[in-house]
Amino acid sequence: MLDEARRRLEALGFSEHDARVLAAHFVDAERRGKRGHGLTRIDWLETLPAVRRDARPELVATEPGYQRWDGRGALGYLTLQEVCESQLADPPSPARLVVAARTFPTGVLGYWARLLAEGGLVCALTATSPLRLPHPSGGPPLAGTNPLAIGVPSSDGRPLVADVSMGRVTYGDVLSGAATAEELVPFGGEYAHKAFALAVGLQALVDALAGEAHGAVLVVARPQFDPVPGLRARAAGTRLPGDR
Amino acid sequence: MLDEARRRLEALGFSEHDARVLAAHFVDAERRGKRGHGLTRIDWLETLPAVRRDARPELVATEPGYQRWDGRGALGYLTLQEVCESQLADPPSPARLVVAARTFPTGVLGYWARLLAEGGLVCALTATSPLRLPHPSGGPPLAGTNPLAIGVPSSDGRPLVADVSMGRVTYGDVLSGAATAEELVPFGGEYAHKAFALAVGLQALVDALAGEAHGAVLVVARPQFDPVPGLRARAAGTRLPGDR
Repeated sequence: MLDEARRRLEALGFSEHDARVLAAHFVDAERRGKRGHGLTRIDWLETLPAVRRDARPELVATEPGYQRWDGRGALGYLTLQEVCESQLADPPSPARLVVAARTFPTGVLGYWARLLAEGGLVCALTATSPLRLPHPSGGPPLAGTNPLAIGVPSSDGRPLVADVSMGRVTYGDVLSGAATAEELVPFGGEYAHKAFALAVGLQALVDALAGEAHGAVLVVARPQFDPVPGLRARAAGTRLPGDR
Repeated sequence: MLDEARRRLEALGFSEHDARVLAAHFVDAERRGKRGHGLTRIDWLETLPAVRRDARPELVATEPGYQRWDGRGALGYLTLQEVCESQLADPPSPARLVVAARTFPTGVLGYWARLLAEGGLVCALTATSPLRLPHPSGGPPLAGTNPLAIGVPSSDGRPLVADVSMGRVTYGDVLSGAATAEELVPFGGEYAHKAFALAVGLQALVDALAGEAHGAVLVVARPQFDPVPGLRARAAGTRLPGDR
C-alpha cells in the first residue's frame, strides 16, 4: 500500500522525500480507519489549484519559546512534518508556541501529535480549514471543522493521543462518500453549541495568530510528569483516545 | 449583589482584596447565567477542607516564553486572577506558556479568558478538576469536566470568548441542584466519545505539565491579526460564543 501510494504521488510530481512523507500520512490514516484522510486524498490533491510541487515551508521568525513558519505554498502536510521534525531536533526548553501560516491541508492532526509524543514532547495542535460549520440554529458556515489534537508521552511507550474534529463528520468523510454535506455540522446534537463554540474559538485563535489563509497553531513542551500509565491503570482496559 | 457577596466572603476570613476578587467572579457567573459557578460557591467554599485564607500563589519559575506558578494552597480563583494580572502587566513577546500547579477551583474559565482578551491578549486556558467523567460506554471516571476557554481580542471592543466544559452538565450544576450526578457525563450523545477524548486529552496534558493535584495551563500571545470583526460580519447577527 505504501509503495503504491508513493508511486502515485511521485507521478503527480512530488519529490521522493515529499511523496514518502505524504504516503506515510495517508496510509496511516487508512490503517486507523480515517479513510476520509487516507488514499482518497491523492486524487483530491490533483484537484487543488494552488499546489506547488517544489514549494518549501520556511521558519520565518524565532524567539525563545516561539517560532513562526510560513508554508509558502507547500502542502500543509509537508509543513507540519517539517515543523514536527524541527521540534524533535531542537526541543523546547521548556515550552514553545509554534504558529504556522499558510498551512493547509493538514490531514489527521493526531498523526503529528503522535509523532511529537513518541519523541517525548507534550503537545496540543489545531488547524483551520475552509468554513463549513454553521451555528447549530442555522446560517452561513462560520468555522472550519478545526480539530484539536493532544499528544502526551508515556513511560510505557504508548502515548495518549486525542484528536477531535468539531464536525459531526469530517469533510474527508464527505469527499470519500461516507457522509453527505448536510451532515457536516457541529457534533453534539442538543449540545452542538459546545462543539460550535470550540470550532469558532479555535478559528479565531488561529486566525489571530496565523492569519486567515488557513494555518496551524502548536503548543509543544517537555513533560514534567508522567500521568499516562496511571490513567491507563484507572481505565482498566477501557479504550483510551488514540489506542487501536 | 456584589457588596453582599464581599461581606459574606470577608466573614469567611478572606482579606478585602481576595473577597473582592472572588465576589467579582461569582457575581459575573450569576449574571451570565452560569449559576452553578455563582454565589452557591460561597457556601461550598466553607466545605473545602484545605482552603487556607492567607495562602498566596507564587511565580516559581520564569523563562522567556514560559512561567510556572504554584497555587501554594490559595484558591484557584485567586491564583488565576494573579496569573492574568501578571500577563497583562508583563505581556508575552510574542507568546508564553503558563503552567499553574495546585490551582483549584478555577471557576468559569471564560472569565479569565475575557480578562486577558479585553486586555489585548489571545489566550487558551484549560484546567483540571476532580475525576467525574467516565467513558461513554461506562466504567470509572477518568477525567474532570476540564473546560477549554479561548479568548480573542477584537478592534470592535467585543472579544470572542468561547468556554466549553466537556461535561453534559457541570459539577456546579449538580451542586446547585440544576442537574443530577448521573447527568455528569461527556456531552454529545452518540458523539460523546469526542467530548470524552477532549476531556482525557486535556487531563493528561495538564497532569503532564502541572502535576496531578489539579492545575491549569494557559497559552497567551499577542495577536498578529484582528479576525473577530470579520467573523461578526459573516455571522450577520447569529450569537457568537461569549456574547450575551
